[in-house]
Amino acid sequence: MSPPSITLYSHRAGPNPWKVDIVLRHLNIPFETVFIGINGEHKRPPYTNINPNGRVPSLIDHSNNDFTIWESGAIMQYIVQKYDKEHKLLFDNFEDNMHVEQWLMFQMSGQGPYYGQAAWFTRYHPEKVPSAIDRYVKEIKRVLGVLDAWLADKEYLVGGRLSIADIAFVPWHEALGFLDNEEVNNWKKEFPNAAAWHERVMALPAAKASFEAKRKAGEAQQKQ
Amino acid sequence: MSPPSITLYSHRAGPNPWKVDIVLRHLNIPFETVFIGINGEHKRPPYTNINPNGRVPSLIDHSNNDFTIWESGAIMQYIVQKYDKEHKLLFDNFEDNMHVEQWLMFQMSGQGPYYGQAAWFTRYHPEKVPSAIDRYVKEIKRVLGVLDAWLADKEYLVGGRLSIADIAFVPWHEALGFLDNEEVNNWKKEFPNAAAWHERVMALPAAKASFEAKRKAGEAQQKQ
Repeated sequence: MSPPSITLYSHRAGPNPWKVDIVLRHLNIPFETVFIGINGEHKRPPYTNINPNGRVPSLIDHSNNDFTIWESGAIMQYIVQKYDKEHKLLFDNFEDNMHVEQWLMFQMSGQGPYYGQAAWFTRYHPEKVPSAIDRYVKEIKRVLGVLDAWLADKEYLVGGRLSIADIAFVPWHEALGFLDNEEVNNWKKEFPNAAAWHERVMALPAAKASFEAKRKAGEAQQKQ
Repeated sequence: MSPPSITLYSHRAGPNPWKVDIVLRHLNIPFETVFIGINGEHKRPPYTNINPNGRVPSLIDHSNNDFTIWESGAIMQYIVQKYDKEHKLLFDNFEDNMHVEQWLMFQMSGQGPYYGQAAWFTRYHPEKVPSAIDRYVKEIKRVLGVLDAWLADKEYLVGGRLSIADIAFVPWHEALGFLDNEEVNNWKKEFPNAAAWHERVMALPAAKASFEAKRKAGEAQQKQ
């Protein structure tokens, strides 16, 4: 089989495309990255013909009739179910794969949106609303508490080894240091099991290469 | 094959368990419902031994070694992938099923959390924060706009027929009438394609039975 030909629509700063970037690198799948969204072009055609939701990431698989898919959680599932023939990230049994889906849904619905609201209200909201900041800082700590307790006796979320569920949580946890909130910045002290798990995923060659690519993309943008 | 033996942990008011309730009814899978969460018992053991995230729904499949799964999106995928042998909701091809996953991820990450924040800030937040209400009302309308445009020439989200993606959106849209915000209450006028699709799913016998069961459960609770 010739290698797949894939385009990933990404963003230099936003966390979600980088989950997909790590998964593609971990599976040694070649791909081209198109950065989008600096001037709002992700919210209008032609990009909204690819993703009517106007968000990144999206992925086009040219080796599969230009199959187009968006939502980072769905893209990761597409990649592993289509291309992870050696089961580096997939499991051999249905039940473990369903538990991966469970933690992935928790990341998509419980981590991403709430961490995102904390980022919004600490950094970008037009007025300071302490009660809203408090709401979302508390929710970050609640989510971290769930993960920390679960990981007390485990190295990874499911089945004793790495899956897309673990990778999915990494970009937002890596971003917590940049929120304008000291309590959240220092999360690793309060949640040592979750912190050790985060470092375990961050130590993957694919994660290192991904965050290095992200750093360089950010630098390139600032020079423009 | 004898019918599966399933327990669904649900809540009388919250939207998410009812997605699973509709799917189980639509596939004629027998199940027992346990209502939880009125007195905060979903946030402590023994329930958190089932779901460490302390939320509903969760599902235990007694016919599969008490396999336990939580997050409504993952539970729906488990049910159809395990039990929808006639492909009433699943598709016969990988690509359509991946697009179901895409729209399901959009529901889980883009509809549920943001509609939930609008409900929170219009009804329960300790102070009135007009800028926060405005943020989430705008996001509801953005999500409805995406759905309305997509459904302009389609009866269902994927492949021309019903899937778990369509069912997943129904409980939160049905709840919009109860938010303390007139603009959101009247969404059906502004988004007629999304409204017609919503009514199409609500007309399913399974959806009718599910919302009737929810109404009765709410009445039973008020009598307690």
